Amino acid sequence: MTTGSESGGAEVVLGPARYGKAEVRLLHVDRAGPQHVITDLNVSVTLSGDLAETYLTGDNARVLTTDAQKNTVYALARKFGVTPVEEFGLRLARHFAAVPAVDRAQVRIEQYAWRRIEAGGALHPHSFERLAGTRVASVHVRDGGGAEVVAGVDDLVLLKSSGSEFQGFLTDPYTTLEPTQDRILATAVRGHWRYADTGQAWDAAFAGARAALVEAFAATYSRSLQQTLYAMGEAVLAACPGICEARFSLPNKHHFLVDLAPFGLDNPGEVFYAADRPYGLIEGTARRAGAAPGDQDHQW
Amino acid sequence: MTTGSESGGAEVVLGPARYGKAEVRLLHVDRAGPQHVITDLNVSVTLSGDLAETYLTGDNARVLTTDAQKNTVYALARKFGVTPVEEFGLRLARHFAAVPAVDRAQVRIEQYAWRRIEAGGALHPHSFERLAGTRVASVHVRDGGGAEVVAGVDDLVLLKSSGSEFQGFLTDPYTTLEPTQDRILATAVRGHWRYADTGQAWDAAFAGARAALVEAFAATYSRSLQQTLYAMGEAVLAACPGICEARFSLPNKHHFLVDLAPFGLDNPGEVFYAADRPYGLIEGTARRAGAAPGDQDHQW
Amino acid sequence: MTTGSESGGAEVVLGPARYGKAEVRLLHVDRAGPQHVITDLNVSVTLSGDLAETYLTGDNARVLTTDAQKNTVYALARKFGVTPVEEFGLRLARHFAAVPAVDRAQVRIEQYAWRRIEAGGALHPHSFERLAGTRVASVHVRDGGGAEVVAGVDDLVLLKSSGSEFQGFLTDPYTTLEPTQDRILATAVRGHWRYADTGQAWDAAFAGARAALVEAFAATYSRSLQQTLYAMGEAVLAACPGICEARFSLPNKHHFLVDLAPFGLDNPGEVFYAADRPYGLIEGTARRAGAAPGDQDHQW
Amino acid sequence: MTTGSESGGAEVVLGPARYGKAEVRLLHVDRAGPQHVITDLNVSVTLSGDLAETYLTGDNARVLTTDAQKNTVYALARKFGVTPVEEFGLRLARHFAAVPAVDRAQVRIEQYAWRRIEAGGALHPHSFERLAGTRVASVHVRDGGGAEVVAGVDDLVLLKSSGSEFQGFLTDPYTTLEPTQDRILATAVRGHWRYADTGQAWDAAFAGARAALVEAFAATYSRSLQQTLYAMGEAVLAACPGICEARFSLPNKHHFLVDLAPFGLDNPGEVFYAADRPYGLIEGTARRAGAAPGDQDHQW
Repeated sequence: MTTGSESGGAEVVLGPARYGKAEVRLLHVDRAGPQHVITDLNVSVTLSGDLAETYLTGDNARVLTTDAQKNTVYALARKFGVTPVEEFGLRLARHFAAVPAVDRAQVRIEQYAWRRIEAGGALHPHSFERLAGTRVASVHVRDGGGAEVVAGVDDLVLLKSSGSEFQGFLTDPYTTLEPTQDRILATAVRGHWRYADTGQAWDAAFAGARAALVEAFAATYSRSLQQTLYAMGEAVLAACPGICEARFSLPNKHHFLVDLAPFGLDNPGEVFYAADRPYGLIEGTARRAGAAPGDQDHQW
Repeated sequence: MTTGSESGGAEVVLGPARYGKAEVRLLHVDRAGPQHVITDLNVSVTLSGDLAETYLTGDNARVLTTDAQKNTVYALARKFGVTPVEEFGLRLARHFAAVPAVDRAQVRIEQYAWRRIEAGGALHPHSFERLAGTRVASVHVRDGGGAEVVAGVDDLVLLKSSGSEFQGFLTDPYTTLEPTQDRILATAVRGHWRYADTGQAWDAAFAGARAALVEAFAATYSRSLQQTLYAMGEAVLAACPGICEARFSLPNKHHFLVDLAPFGLDNPGEVFYAADRPYGLIEGTARRAGAAPGDQDHQW
Repeated sequence: MTTGSESGGAEVVLGPARYGKAEVRLLHVDRAGPQHVITDLNVSVTLSGDLAETYLTGDNARVLTTDAQKNTVYALARKFGVTPVEEFGLRLARHFAAVPAVDRAQVRIEQYAWRRIEAGGALHPHSFERLAGTRVASVHVRDGGGAEVVAGVDDLVLLKSSGSEFQGFLTDPYTTLEPTQDRILATAVRGHWRYADTGQAWDAAFAGARAALVEAFAATYSRSLQQTLYAMGEAVLAACPGICEARFSLPNKHHFLVDLAPFGLDNPGEVFYAADRPYGLIEGTARRAGAAPGDQDHQW
Repeated sequence: MTTGSESGGAEVVLGPARYGKAEVRLLHVDRAGPQHVITDLNVSVTLSGDLAETYLTGDNARVLTTDAQKNTVYALARKFGVTPVEEFGLRLARHFAAVPAVDRAQVRIEQYAWRRIEAGGALHPHSFERLAGTRVASVHVRDGGGAEVVAGVDDLVLLKSSGSEFQGFLTDPYTTLEPTQDRILATAVRGHWRYADTGQAWDAAFAGARAALVEAFAATYSRSLQQTLYAMGEAVLAACPGICEARFSLPNKHHFLVDLAPFGLDNPGEVFYAADRPYGLIEGTARRAGAAPGDQDHQW
């Protein structure tokens, strides 16, 4: 990133750059056993390295085409399978990091959930119904260096109809919110966690961490969504010793009690308006003390 | 719709017209028992009647404001509860049909699915996780006349990884598709059914019809998505004698086998590309013979 | 639609059915002149006819594959060009209606707007920027029979910051809205119009009708969105004698004046909250008196 | 971020955290002159600081509610106006950074484009039509410290129907793409630039930078989208000396030439299929040499 160019009398240089193929949609069908196993993925690849020539002059000699990246996703899926997605991500990222001119490869995978359909009193061998929620894996590999694995959930929608207060907050001249001792708490969890190394039991770790954060949401008496966030992070770290950090981004999906007094009705916490925008957005991180810092170039 | 106006020398008249409040988002919390019961709805109201004056002159004396419609949704929810949604829709539609100047009222309700969170080995009394899929009810009521109830599902995503062929089709000069004896069949079901009367066991009827259509999708060896559609319709009618008609709109969500030959790999039905657009769109209706025709003004 | 089947002891018959390929995305580049002309389309085909066998038995002998429909869209684009879109729709619909087993063909086309980029003081010959708004054409052709052409706009977002009141409306026990003499009026126009025949100057008719409805929105002092809707319809009919009917679906995109009194501030129509949901939804039709009725099977 | 907690025998600490109100939708109407001026915004606030107590214990004494943040957006809009958005963002961010317990405030504003409607041969004083494209401003202020301003465009869709090649690229065993000397180049520009200081002529700078990047897209003969990206960055820096860095994220919206040979037709660059997914994603930065580095905590 040292090569530059002249523009308007002032020198311009290339700063951070990366590229790749995004959203390669892949369905994998494992027909080995009597029951098919399907895996439904959305794979995005991002590569960094010595890319200055293509940006500065259009010389593409060091550019692995995004089309080839797509082909690689499909071919390695056939050669080695796609589960667990953390392993598939590692395999892809290591493959790409070994390409000439690539210094770093990041592979992000979304996995959509399906369940087997019950028909005639038995689970059907090759028919499925899609469920809510997305499992995510993000793998970052440096050429000749280490690999970092992150996993998590996206768009996991949770709600508590009680056990949530919000009071004792700072008041300024623009504060009109009344403190409340009982409110609806609802969010769509984006929760991702970083593993200490690549030697994890991926499926068990994911299942344990997911269950722990959902249970923490339910079991925590909430004084703020921030507090609930941190409790979820602690639960993830407690559930899996291989996890060293958990990050959350939680929209506060507001539900407002409807004023029914104009119609001669009370409303004892029964009828709410579910608002779209604006919404609160609470972000935070729970870290295991002493854990090694993560890779600054891994974007998750 | 007989009043007109002059425009450009030619008389213009008012044709079909209707109006209402769309997408009233409502969360209802039933706190009566030891465990809260939540119902998460999206309610849309549409009214028709003698509306000519507001369209032609802006005289609003016969217009029930859409704001009042929204208030009514919330107030009746408090007074009478919101389940089953077919009953709530009937109550609302009858209320609106009785308003002066309203001849017909249609109420469409989407209900989002939630399940109770398990925490500490038990189902939590007031914490919930949202599931996929939407239950729909549409009710149409005429002032002083009958009511028609439709229910169904939206965006129920199903997939078969085998048991689906497509061959023997018409070929024309633009046909290049190869017949196949084994393909992926995937769709997002929009399936709605009309009840013969308003005296149904709504929740049981919905559950039975939904289960029947999912099972028919799984159990039917598919020669075309059209055939699967009709089999689903037959199953819905067989499951519930109170249903007289079922309509489906089924996108054919194409999954294409990836050609891996350039990489020296075969691909025996294992790795597929899930395409977005274009998609097939198959629509059809299964009707009980001899059933009374539905209300032409009910839009579902 | 006379063939039936047995299900649960009661006979089931096939009701209305149709199928086709949806959302064929096509970019056409005309390189004939010194300046390229691009046309960016989304084409959806729907066919009806004697389809009972495929629904009832999976015999596909009378099914033109949706893949062939897609191929046809691309091939006829190459052979005959794609503009004006009403002509392209007519050509496609007539082609499909002539296929054996097809009785009726409907072709819906969305055209996205682009403008030429200005570079170096001149319009660039082959570089373009996309604009807002969608032009729509819908053509319905019966085998051996007539053709009906509809055109219009989708998602044309308009707003008046004055010149809109709403008062004199009916009040019921659930009415709390205050009458207003000055409000924000905003909508996203879905406005489609039917032509009397297929011999129109399509581009001129479209441009005239679009301009007329936008100008009517601006020029009409609004007593209700219903009144504005009808004024837009009259304007469309006045602008083009070949148009015999105009239908509109107008969401009322509410803007609420923010109460700033708690902060010691007035708010004389200056700061508004733009709400998402719920919204009013106003629908209506303006018809030329004496116009022949449209084709009931044309869904627009 | 020093306070911790015990969990599962290992100490857990709070890492990076922030919160705020997202997507406050605001329409501002300036009625001062004979013609109304409207400004349509979406404002998001994010605050950081000493937030440990609310995360760790639910003590909210240092939490400025997101509701108060929303109120502040509306109140300051009334007091001081909202244009240019960079100034409004600075005013808001400085206000929030001065709140006790807040160390850093980031305000992101999206501004939607509107134009005046022409009616009766003149521009209408209070009627408007919405245009495509979004102007963005992001302001980051440290308590007692500096302010950083970023501006740019989102979702600016551009296309070249010629003047774009892609060849000479690296080939690996998974490369099947053929080099091309003439292809469609299309993207949706996310282009943001950082100003060297807060003393800019914001509207002129924005207009100049936007025009420069669009013109560079058109005028650059493209050997890769990377090269085009960098040319756009150079153009932005050349257009405005107050800009020290420009970042771009450019999806490569693929258009594939349709193979019409099966139908006996050639296709000399005329009919293309516009694909949705996957897409290339090219990111890069152009920096003025010697420019001071930006604030690492400003997320743009």
